[in-house]
Amino acid sequence: MKNSGDSTVIDVPPTAGSSSKKKAVVSTAAPQQASGGVKRGLSIFDFVIRLGALGAALGAAAAMGTSDETLPFFTQFFQFEASYDDLPTFQFFLIAMGIVAGYLALSLPFSIVCIVRPGAVGLRLLLLILDTVVLTLATSAAAAAAAIVYLAHDGNSSTNWLAICDQFEDFCQNISGAVIGAFIAALLMMFLILLSAFAIRNTH
Amino acid sequence: MKNSGDSTVIDVPPTAGSSSKKKAVVSTAAPQQASGGVKRGLSIFDFVIRLGALGAALGAAAAMGTSDETLPFFTQFFQFEASYDDLPTFQFFLIAMGIVAGYLALSLPFSIVCIVRPGAVGLRLLLLILDTVVLTLATSAAAAAAAIVYLAHDGNSSTNWLAICDQFEDFCQNISGAVIGAFIAALLMMFLILLSAFAIRNTH
Repeated sequence: MKNSGDSTVIDVPPTAGSSSKKKAVVSTAAPQQASGGVKRGLSIFDFVIRLGALGAALGAAAAMGTSDETLPFFTQFFQFEASYDDLPTFQFFLIAMGIVAGYLALSLPFSIVCIVRPGAVGLRLLLLILDTVVLTLATSAAAAAAAIVYLAHDGNSSTNWLAICDQFEDFCQNISGAVIGAFIAALLMMFLILLSAFAIRNTH
Repeated sequence: MKNSGDSTVIDVPPTAGSSSKKKAVVSTAAPQQASGGVKRGLSIFDFVIRLGALGAALGAAAAMGTSDETLPFFTQFFQFEASYDDLPTFQFFLIAMGIVAGYLALSLPFSIVCIVRPGAVGLRLLLLILDTVVLTLATSAAAAAAAIVYLAHDGNSSTNWLAICDQFEDFCQNISGAVIGAFIAALLMMFLILLSAFAIRNTH
């Protein structure tokens, strides 16, 4: 009786009794159980990372949503105020992060199902597909906001766009933090996809 | 008698008839062949989409790299010129699209290997991981450039950033086209990841 990698060669002697049969069953069941343990571990890891990504996305959305600064001086006609809804990119950022956080929260129960039933390949595949879509959403929101934050910090002389962070320091700190949170969420979701791929690969 | 893994060799004891041997061979070979055909089809689809994504990424990089416009009038001290290297975001876009196109070109041979050997799960997993990383790169480049292109088209009154597309029409058309190409490349790479996931799932 030999088990070498993927293929199994079973030499059953002519006088094969019931005892050797039992052995064969046990020897094939053992690697399956080990694979189940690995899958369960991957699922628990998936749940923890998903929780972390949810926290990062919520933090990013909160930092962006509360980014509102009014300068202490004003002219007769105008009071200087900066808020996320002055820039469409930041509005998109807030909506996208809301969707990402909502999806991650809704996917937590499914992640738990994957822990309880390590053999649910279809569910893992569904999570992987949705994760990929939401990863793209999170990445695009983070990158677009990062491009605007960079402009707000440094400005651009060629296009005559002036930096606004000299005036609105708190506002700029808030939006910078939001972008960092979004990138952390995107990074964690990349790990989620890799974990799902490994879990699907281990399901034989 | 149990089939656990890819191939099973069963030495049936002498008391078993030859008819049961044939049955065992037939029943294990049929689903394997069908699965191999599906996997091969997925691999060919993967190759075609990869080629399309490569074309989109190259087109995006070319459109951005050639976006250079000099206005026909000039003052004593200054000639009005717009080019992608005036804006750091567009420089990042060009570099990122170059990396994406280079990766896609280098991954084509591996995609062919997946067509020839449908059972190469490790290779598919490697491609899936690298695809995810490069998808994130492509998405972030496209989104960051899109945010700047939007600003160039519409400007922003709150931050006093004026639209430059009124003056630099050709430049704006070029960069808009580049962003569209990058988003198409990102979309095709999302399909690549889904295909890889399905192919790994089908490998039993």
